[in-house]
Amino acid sequence: MTDTPNPALAPLAAFVGTWSGEGNGSYPTIPPFGYQEEITISTVPGKPFLAYTQRTRATDDGRPLHAETGYWRCTPGAGPGDAPRVEVVLAHPTGIVEVLEGTGPFGTAEQVVDLSSSSVAGSATAKRVDATARRFVVVGDELRYTVAMAAVGSPLTHHLAATLRRVGA
Amino acid sequence: MTDTPNPALAPLAAFVGTWSGEGNGSYPTIPPFGYQEEITISTVPGKPFLAYTQRTRATDDGRPLHAETGYWRCTPGAGPGDAPRVEVVLAHPTGIVEVLEGTGPFGTAEQVVDLSSSSVAGSATAKRVDATARRFVVVGDELRYTVAMAAVGSPLTHHLAATLRRVGA
Repeated sequence: MTDTPNPALAPLAAFVGTWSGEGNGSYPTIPPFGYQEEITISTVPGKPFLAYTQRTRATDDGRPLHAETGYWRCTPGAGPGDAPRVEVVLAHPTGIVEVLEGTGPFGTAEQVVDLSSSSVAGSATAKRVDATARRFVVVGDELRYTVAMAAVGSPLTHHLAATLRRVGA
Repeated sequence: MTDTPNPALAPLAAFVGTWSGEGNGSYPTIPPFGYQEEITISTVPGKPFLAYTQRTRATDDGRPLHAETGYWRCTPGAGPGDAPRVEVVLAHPTGIVEVLEGTGPFGTAEQVVDLSSSSVAGSATAKRVDATARRFVVVGDELRYTVAMAAVGSPLTHHLAATLRRVGA
């Protein structure tokens, strides 16, 4: 057992931390809404993945809104000049699971991870989600992300955007 | 916002808590192994789901082994005499996500939840898992579970069994 960070995760080092901030959501089927969010992306000693948790609360009264939990994985790119491959697996309390795959981080001033769903599945009582896409960007102590979603009959459409600040290592 | 437990979750009240114990794993493709485990099943104020996390460590040297994270959902059975329906969504750091569906709790002295996978999906670098089944049983302050798995060419085969004691509310 070792506390040394797994070298497979070195490309994602800038994403590790506790992040807090605000976001805005919209979708063709619902009214726009604001939310407060905390994201934690953390190492597990010696393990080749990052643990990811997210919770949001309503901006107006602080009631819990959404949550997500899962893991980030990272493997080297296919060629010597290629960006690493990133895989994110998530479970949602709405009865949805998703596998997101993509590349990153690429960029210099900005560290960017771009992901698209390779699988989305839902339980019998979950709303139908067909596909998702996410972009995470870290610049210094700022984490920004966007989420697009194809669901309940709408094509892949912008859904969420948030900007968070690092509040913990 | 309210701290009242969501009434949809009343059938699963016996499962809420922090559980600690030991288990044994086996599979046709690997040597048998023992593990120590902690499971936390917790409410989120007002929300119609339970948060579920699990971590295991090797019995011999305490090194981290597996982890899982996800949510439990519960809806009434179809008919007045039917057991509730339970849905569990999980993400695994191995790059796997799964949706498990079933019924429970049924039983009197024992509270039993029986689940089978309706979807299992993996990232490009994950090992292939085709199906899983789980049984959770609570008797007083004891939680037992079994996991069966169809993976890497083996049919649905017993994989894990563990017995845990309640160590927290």
